[in-house]
Amino acid sequence: MLDLPFLPFCALLGGLGFVCVAFVSAWCQHWRGGFALDGSAQMFNWHPVLMVTGMVVLYGAAALVYRLPPAWSGPKLPWKVLHGTLALAAFGLAVLGLAAVFRFHNDHGTPNMYSLHSWLGLATVLLFSCQVGAAPAPCTLATRAPHPFPFPPCTVHVFFGSTILMLSVASCVSGINEKLFFSLKNGTTEYKRLPAEAVFANTLGLLILLFGVLVL
Amino acid sequence: MLDLPFLPFCALLGGLGFVCVAFVSAWCQHWRGGFALDGSAQMFNWHPVLMVTGMVVLYGAAALVYRLPPAWSGPKLPWKVLHGTLALAAFGLAVLGLAAVFRFHNDHGTPNMYSLHSWLGLATVLLFSCQVGAAPAPCTLATRAPHPFPFPPCTVHVFFGSTILMLSVASCVSGINEKLFFSLKNGTTEYKRLPAEAVFANTLGLLILLFGVLVL
Repeated sequence: MLDLPFLPFCALLGGLGFVCVAFVSAWCQHWRGGFALDGSAQMFNWHPVLMVTGMVVLYGAAALVYRLPPAWSGPKLPWKVLHGTLALAAFGLAVLGLAAVFRFHNDHGTPNMYSLHSWLGLATVLLFSCQVGAAPAPCTLATRAPHPFPFPPCTVHVFFGSTILMLSVASCVSGINEKLFFSLKNGTTEYKRLPAEAVFANTLGLLILLFGVLVL
Repeated sequence: MLDLPFLPFCALLGGLGFVCVAFVSAWCQHWRGGFALDGSAQMFNWHPVLMVTGMVVLYGAAALVYRLPPAWSGPKLPWKVLHGTLALAAFGLAVLGLAAVFRFHNDHGTPNMYSLHSWLGLATVLLFSCQVGAAPAPCTLATRAPHPFPFPPCTVHVFFGSTILMLSVASCVSGINEKLFFSLKNGTTEYKRLPAEAVFANTLGLLILLFGVLVL
């Protein structure tokens, strides 16, 4: 929307995306006991890392491919391949991230899909799966005029693409908030006493928001 | 972004905004004990109602004023007045909504400003206060070319306007999620058992998101 110099802006966004992934990984490693594949709380920890990396950072990178100055001229195919590869990688990580939380819930007898965070998160991934399924069609159709739709199909792809990123960011924020209330319940690290972990994870939430807003 | 027929679309959005206000009011009245001004939990209930009505519905209406077909031609001043009035009303309700939650916290010895929801919500209202403070300047400057900025100042106003709406929606979703975890802790109405209140408030969260996405 703003006419910013794109290369420094893309570098800034790349750096911010890297910081988001580093922050969510450091949170889970340092305060939440690290990672495992055994259905324990350490298996749950893959959920925030994979969702932030996939649905926010890689997804945002896929959205920005066509905005890179080298993509403005010359053959479009390499950029389409890059866009598709990043989107598919994002989708793969999201599916693994969902598998991690469902396995953790099932192994602990916790119901799935009751919180607003879970409803919103699943809706986001389902919408993303529709987008991935129909992916190349809308923007291929858009190159053929006149088309049978009241608006260019590629606009639909871009509209849902932006919507999914907004939903992803809202899911991450509500998920971090929820996780902190779960994890910091008693004692000197209670959430309302704002221990170091809470400051760190709240900051992660704001960074994710900033990344989402700047990509959009 | 999509070339939709605007009047039916605006009517749909108006209806959706009304449903959001009705849902949040019904939630607080029916399940959370109604409203009061005495620093009790009933005083807290003004917080979600005022924030959803102000920062989402009235704010969204203010954002859409210039998109109404009658605003496209003829004198701009009446539409500027309407835009400003709606934005100021939204800001007033947001300030009252913050006052309600701070008063509730202070009367109960609960710390303010520790959760990610509170950080995000306050950042949103602070950003909105900057927008209100600088309001007429950017878009007045934008009518005078050439201007001294690298991009039209009105674009900055629109960019921050959209950003504030995104932050508002993310604040509402994280706030509803947080409130349900607080309120539905024990017994047969526990959140994870998905009682009627949880289904109702989760649906409210999704409706607010839908409203925000459609306005954007």
